[in-house]
Amino acid sequence: MTLSVNQDRLWQALLDMAAVGATLEGGSNRPALSAADAEARALLLSWCEPLGLKMERDGIGNLFLRRAGQAQRPAVAFGSHLDTVPTGGRFDGAFGVLAGLEALRTLHDAGVATAAPLELVVWTNEEGSRFPPAMMGSRVHAGDLPLDRALTTTDDAGETVGEALAETFQIGFLTPGPRDWAAWIEPHIEQGPVLEQAGAAVGIVTGTVEARYFHLTVTGEASHAGATAMAGRRDSLAAAAEMILATEQIGLSSEPGGRSSAAWIGNAPNVRGAVPSLTRLHCDMRHEDPARVDVMEAAARIAWTAIAARRGVQLEVDAYASFGPVQFDPGLGALLREAAAARQLPVRDMVAAAGHDSVLIAPLCPSAMLFVPSRGGVTHHPTEYTAPEHLAGGAQVLLDAVMRLAN
Amino acid sequence: MTLSVNQDRLWQALLDMAAVGATLEGGSNRPALSAADAEARALLLSWCEPLGLKMERDGIGNLFLRRAGQAQRPAVAFGSHLDTVPTGGRFDGAFGVLAGLEALRTLHDAGVATAAPLELVVWTNEEGSRFPPAMMGSRVHAGDLPLDRALTTTDDAGETVGEALAETFQIGFLTPGPRDWAAWIEPHIEQGPVLEQAGAAVGIVTGTVEARYFHLTVTGEASHAGATAMAGRRDSLAAAAEMILATEQIGLSSEPGGRSSAAWIGNAPNVRGAVPSLTRLHCDMRHEDPARVDVMEAAARIAWTAIAARRGVQLEVDAYASFGPVQFDPGLGALLREAAAARQLPVRDMVAAAGHDSVLIAPLCPSAMLFVPSRGGVTHHPTEYTAPEHLAGGAQVLLDAVMRLAN
Repeated sequence: MTLSVNQDRLWQALLDMAAVGATLEGGSNRPALSAADAEARALLLSWCEPLGLKMERDGIGNLFLRRAGQAQRPAVAFGSHLDTVPTGGRFDGAFGVLAGLEALRTLHDAGVATAAPLELVVWTNEEGSRFPPAMMGSRVHAGDLPLDRALTTTDDAGETVGEALAETFQIGFLTPGPRDWAAWIEPHIEQGPVLEQAGAAVGIVTGTVEARYFHLTVTGEASHAGATAMAGRRDSLAAAAEMILATEQIGLSSEPGGRSSAAWIGNAPNVRGAVPSLTRLHCDMRHEDPARVDVMEAAARIAWTAIAARRGVQLEVDAYASFGPVQFDPGLGALLREAAAARQLPVRDMVAAAGHDSVLIAPLCPSAMLFVPSRGGVTHHPTEYTAPEHLAGGAQVLLDAVMRLAN
Repeated sequence: MTLSVNQDRLWQALLDMAAVGATLEGGSNRPALSAADAEARALLLSWCEPLGLKMERDGIGNLFLRRAGQAQRPAVAFGSHLDTVPTGGRFDGAFGVLAGLEALRTLHDAGVATAAPLELVVWTNEEGSRFPPAMMGSRVHAGDLPLDRALTTTDDAGETVGEALAETFQIGFLTPGPRDWAAWIEPHIEQGPVLEQAGAAVGIVTGTVEARYFHLTVTGEASHAGATAMAGRRDSLAAAAEMILATEQIGLSSEPGGRSSAAWIGNAPNVRGAVPSLTRLHCDMRHEDPARVDVMEAAARIAWTAIAARRGVQLEVDAYASFGPVQFDPGLGALLREAAAARQLPVRDMVAAAGHDSVLIAPLCPSAMLFVPSRGGVTHHPTEYTAPEHLAGGAQVLLDAVMRLAN
């Protein structure tokens, strides 16, 4: 028996979800645990209500929506996240959740039961743009990050995750931890140009790069920008500027497999007239080959330290998070590949360069990711776009694979 | 007749004033039109009450405290500012105001009247660290900045000067503009090491450098920091980092007379995981020789533009403020030099590298500045320090000069 997902319904759900936190530029801004993020979850729950799902949440706000199975078996789980970066588009995260919803709606409309239970999952704070680190909810779920450390993490305004969870009514009663899952599948937009350039409709993600994240704290000395001679300065911002460029250079010299960036900067006193004395940076480095990440990190540390020493500023480097490299389950990958082929969808294997919640779930149960093309490879941007037929194709492959796994 | 200022009373007043907005590091944090800035003015007014001064304020909050003279003559005015940068010390600004207070207290205690009225002045928002530009109060007074433009200027939190004036009850009824002054003298700490290194107790400021201030807005393109190839990025923060270093290099190659800095940075979206797409900088450039400032600005514009073009980012440059070069009144300088010599205080002529309210007053009436040594040249920093005897020396020269001018 085969069922077909409803392309128009999936597209409309994505547009309706994008209206939550919609930006003037045409994207969505739903920082983790903001009012918009909570509203997105409430919208999803309103759509789930007719489906008769059982809702559970854990102490970090991860949301689990279970469709009962006919047998006592571990569940087949799937989903993604609903939070976005401030300059977010309409598809990153939301597609994985709403593809899962579309699969459940299709089964529901057809009155089809599965042997194994199915579980739609919304992870808390995948982006990490408001509260570091990224993939916070799945990290806590996987035991990679202690719950109390996650709850006391602050945003730039000093609010904690615990406070934001309480304010948005997202705290659940479950203790975070692994669940009875037979498999985990995360559909997601590619966030790169590979599928589009290859003319593929579906990407089977065999694994992810290794990524490492660093906090740099540069301490110089405050002085008057007009009255202090250039030679006598210990300007933390100028030192950080050199570190930004050194970080970029390491990514450039590690292409094609390597990436690096300095994405966040904080500067104090950050006032006109005062030579900056305390500048902080968040940098990241990634490579498909883990051995190369070691080389990138070593090169960055040598460059950063040399800059600090030459300029007489203090430097602290905190390697505060990392993920990967991860190999996803080959059997599950094969199942997805077959499902795509059965629908005549051109398919391609690939490695993910961005972090995803699936990285944390992979050690817990057989896991896989399924990519759909992203126009021009643009993501984390209001113009992020995937064609409705590609979105429906991805949801169809998910549904077909889930039915195979659950029966 | 000569009168002697009270060194202990002046020192105690400075300590008491420093306690308003005191920081854990031993400095003072009184941003313009903050609660602490208003409290500092209230403390000054409480000290002035026994002196029988007439208080007036204008529409930008400049504060004028007048001691009546015996004749109908233009007043002799003096003072400085009470606001500080966030990492401020105890003496920048406060010394000029409290040296003026000490002069008035000494006259009052001795029961000595002057022919001309005397006027102690507190300028609003000299630092410009919360609301640009620096020297806002004196700019409005001198007609260099329209009052309505000043009142609608916002701080980084979006509050306007007008709102902050109203909230702190600092709006006066006077229309800002020149007053009936025969002379203006501003005592100030040096903010550099020249006097200390020369063994001088008093510096006669003959003029100031020329300084120019720029806003740079760098627009790139938002994208995912993990998924976007290095070569495809238009990273506004990396471009700005190059501009920071180019700005610094222009100052370094313009020494000894030149200074430049990038002191303020704003970055968006400024989140982990997103390649920055909008970065703003505030840069300044100064030189004793105005012709050299032209060269510095031209070199900076060429460098900034080339960086933007090479990186495919957009750049807007707004030359939003400038001051100087100013020549202070030679006759008033000679009077101060004689007054210092009469007290056996080693004296030295010098050029000011920082902006001061006196820059704006110089075109309106004969004006002068009087510097006292700053330990190690440190300023805009909690460890800013001037010895009590040097502070008293400066206040004494002010009092002696004021008595000469007012009789």
